[in-house]
Amino acid sequence: MAHADLAASTEQALGGAPRKQQLIERLTAELPADIVLHADEDLRPFECDGLSAYRQVPMIVVLPSTIAQVQTTMRICHDNDVPVVARGAGTGLSGGALPLDDGVLLSLAKFNRILDIDTDNRRATVQPGVRNLAISEAVSHLGLYYAPDPSSQIACSIGGNVAENSGGVHCLKYGLTTHNIVQIEIVTVEGERLTIGSSALDSPGFDLLALMTGSEGLLGVIVEVTVKLLAKPELARVALVAFDDVRKAGDAVAAIIQAGIVPAGLEMLDNPAIVATEEFVHAGYPKDAAAILLCEVDGTEAEVEEDIERVREVVEREGATEVRISRDDGERALFWAGRKAAFPAMGRISPDYYCMDGTIPRKALAEVLIGIGELSEEYGQRVANVFHAGDGNLHPLILYDANQEGELERTEAFGGAICRLCLEHGGSITGEHGVGVEKIDQMCVQFPSAELTQFHAVKEAFDPKGLLNPGKAVPTLHRCAEFGAMHVHNGELPHPELERL
Amino acid sequence: MAHADLAASTEQALGGAPRKQQLIERLTAELPADIVLHADEDLRPFECDGLSAYRQVPMIVVLPSTIAQVQTTMRICHDNDVPVVARGAGTGLSGGALPLDDGVLLSLAKFNRILDIDTDNRRATVQPGVRNLAISEAVSHLGLYYAPDPSSQIACSIGGNVAENSGGVHCLKYGLTTHNIVQIEIVTVEGERLTIGSSALDSPGFDLLALMTGSEGLLGVIVEVTVKLLAKPELARVALVAFDDVRKAGDAVAAIIQAGIVPAGLEMLDNPAIVATEEFVHAGYPKDAAAILLCEVDGTEAEVEEDIERVREVVEREGATEVRISRDDGERALFWAGRKAAFPAMGRISPDYYCMDGTIPRKALAEVLIGIGELSEEYGQRVANVFHAGDGNLHPLILYDANQEGELERTEAFGGAICRLCLEHGGSITGEHGVGVEKIDQMCVQFPSAELTQFHAVKEAFDPKGLLNPGKAVPTLHRCAEFGAMHVHNGELPHPELERL
Repeated sequence: MAHADLAASTEQALGGAPRKQQLIERLTAELPADIVLHADEDLRPFECDGLSAYRQVPMIVVLPSTIAQVQTTMRICHDNDVPVVARGAGTGLSGGALPLDDGVLLSLAKFNRILDIDTDNRRATVQPGVRNLAISEAVSHLGLYYAPDPSSQIACSIGGNVAENSGGVHCLKYGLTTHNIVQIEIVTVEGERLTIGSSALDSPGFDLLALMTGSEGLLGVIVEVTVKLLAKPELARVALVAFDDVRKAGDAVAAIIQAGIVPAGLEMLDNPAIVATEEFVHAGYPKDAAAILLCEVDGTEAEVEEDIERVREVVEREGATEVRISRDDGERALFWAGRKAAFPAMGRISPDYYCMDGTIPRKALAEVLIGIGELSEEYGQRVANVFHAGDGNLHPLILYDANQEGELERTEAFGGAICRLCLEHGGSITGEHGVGVEKIDQMCVQFPSAELTQFHAVKEAFDPKGLLNPGKAVPTLHRCAEFGAMHVHNGELPHPELERL
Repeated sequence: MAHADLAASTEQALGGAPRKQQLIERLTAELPADIVLHADEDLRPFECDGLSAYRQVPMIVVLPSTIAQVQTTMRICHDNDVPVVARGAGTGLSGGALPLDDGVLLSLAKFNRILDIDTDNRRATVQPGVRNLAISEAVSHLGLYYAPDPSSQIACSIGGNVAENSGGVHCLKYGLTTHNIVQIEIVTVEGERLTIGSSALDSPGFDLLALMTGSEGLLGVIVEVTVKLLAKPELARVALVAFDDVRKAGDAVAAIIQAGIVPAGLEMLDNPAIVATEEFVHAGYPKDAAAILLCEVDGTEAEVEEDIERVREVVEREGATEVRISRDDGERALFWAGRKAAFPAMGRISPDYYCMDGTIPRKALAEVLIGIGELSEEYGQRVANVFHAGDGNLHPLILYDANQEGELERTEAFGGAICRLCLEHGGSITGEHGVGVEKIDQMCVQFPSAELTQFHAVKEAFDPKGLLNPGKAVPTLHRCAEFGAMHVHNGELPHPELERL
């Protein structure tokens, strides 16, 4: 059901009366009145998530603290055909938790308890609103940690991580969220509670756990998550490697992997990113370098010593102009401090920035970076690149000023061109930030209608009325036709690899 | 649609005439006549897969060699409501590729070409009938290999591996099939071709690739697979560790993992398995040991030397009576020879054996092995255990004689009791062999009806008529009610953990 139709049917289901008022009455009849927010000043704080360029005040916010309250909310909304957007910490960067003006924003913020830590099986069971970093903090004294570490890990919630299949600096070695969770509890759109996955190695039946992971709130509401815990590595060291040429840096990334080394993290910053971060945090980055790599290896002492020397050999062969290896954990933290502050550093040199999230095969790194540079000149907008090089997961940051007439639009067009560039090189429009509202039109470029149709069929298997987070992640074929993106499949784009898309 | 209803509707769709003859005519009108087999002597070889206790001659066999022929076959069967069972090498152990007497057996045996090897991105694209081991053989000269290595890897096909989400000795470190593939091409039940997944790190939209993996042929026909390739480790060494007590061996497995070692393989054999294999292949296993572990570590020389010594320390602390470490690749192969021949070795001491496939949390290993021993006495049947201890993936082999009246039935009952034992310890009824026909009733024990209902909804999103491999993997609620397994949810089973199932 298209969203416009849905609004009409909501109107109808609630009998044509002022539907907001009626829904408030139905919700407060079964839920504590203080968890149902509806005054404008209470709703305003929820108008956007981490993608602040898009704002929408929700009709109503519900703040449950028990699974039963989530079930009640879902049942009432389902019975009344009211759409629901679930939200964790609201740090998402693609507008996946943007509210709807005729919908309920279901905040899981109060679900912030760690329920169980099972050291024997190395699992932790937590509520979805628990912050990513809080899990590692809670098990640190046991020598354990939770591996996926998105940049926002101090703030983002594990439920949101599951919904977006979040990655992070260390996912090259330790995998995405989907590789680090074993079981979730969800509440369905009808308000039923369902356990998905199991604590065993491989659960029979369809892999609904992987299906739910990264489904951006379209299939169910996550109310509990059981994650894997890993033993903290004995030692980690990071090499800070400088290059005088972006192409050499890109090739060095491929060469490190080619050598059979599996770095715990392998990040890259180009010159604009180096300069901005160095002036902000003084991590000691060489401001004249065209690009730097941060390559971390971890494991036992013997492994780390051997691997870091192999990294040095490879990057020197690839033309590195400087290689510095962290001597202790303090220096290691300093080397990373620049990378971690790279996004805020942009805020010092530009009023706004727009973070893209394409992925490409590693071998195409150098070529795509050069292509982004060319697009930057074409669109007349500055770009800084700071990204997960080992995964081929780019984060071009387009610098702009939202207060300048037309700049946001030009930035979005530039972003679209970067997406197409990634696709032309056999990549994808998003690596870890999700599709949300931001990249929904780009989905039309990446996927042929047969696959989109299959996505809709799966969506219908969980949410026949289309009430869960409508308008996000998966575009309707109608929308794609309007966007005019079908041209990719008709071969109008030059690159032959696109024939297969 | 239940399978009985389906047969009736097939009859109807084909107009009540001898439907086999009519379907042959429709197929041969569009396909080469020599790929449509229908004579009894041609059909007979297809009557079973690796689970030979179940046999059924198919109505017709189609042996396509092009994707277009698969599409044609699917379209004709779909138009005529004829069920289709796809099969790769037919080595599956749960009857997942058992034919139907009113259905088409679609053999992918001719899809045996390696289409592309991409060393830059470490990918190989192959047809589904390519044997698992053939992939590693084809890239061996490049220093690469494909990691998942089921025991049947010399014979089993990669398409079947995807359908069953196969594991193997090395999946503890390198993951299951689902972790080692990036893209598949499928033909839908309607005969449409669809690309699922991408060569990028993380594809947006729902994770249909993970959903298809392990779906046992219920969602589509796999016609192309792109796998990840890994660099062959520089060195591998294996420790052969003996114990005088099964409990100590089980605890040592947990202790190795607890110590933060990630073995490339960690296998266990109990005394009956040791004796049978040693008398067969003379690998040097100590026949008086209650259990042995084979613990392999791989990596660079420094890593391996360090890890294998840590393994020695841990197992000695856990009470090992003997530790032998392979001195070279020859001795390593010898240590593994026994494990690899364990299944055939059973054929020498028993006319038949029934291989179970439960998984349990590692910490429960010792307790479950002791429980299986008690069940063995209760049922009066011998059991040998040879299994992936590191994953908690048991393979109890129940020894029996199918020619003895009632022995198969007693064996199946014993197998059911082992499944329940695994579930009682928080495990699963199958680790890597799939559900197929063999464990379909046990699915009723593992899953509550809400989750089974969700499985059916997903199935319907891909195959609304229920024509793909009906009667396998996911039981109907009706079937579960008949099996009487709903009692689990009513709390009649003693173990409190079952309350949650």
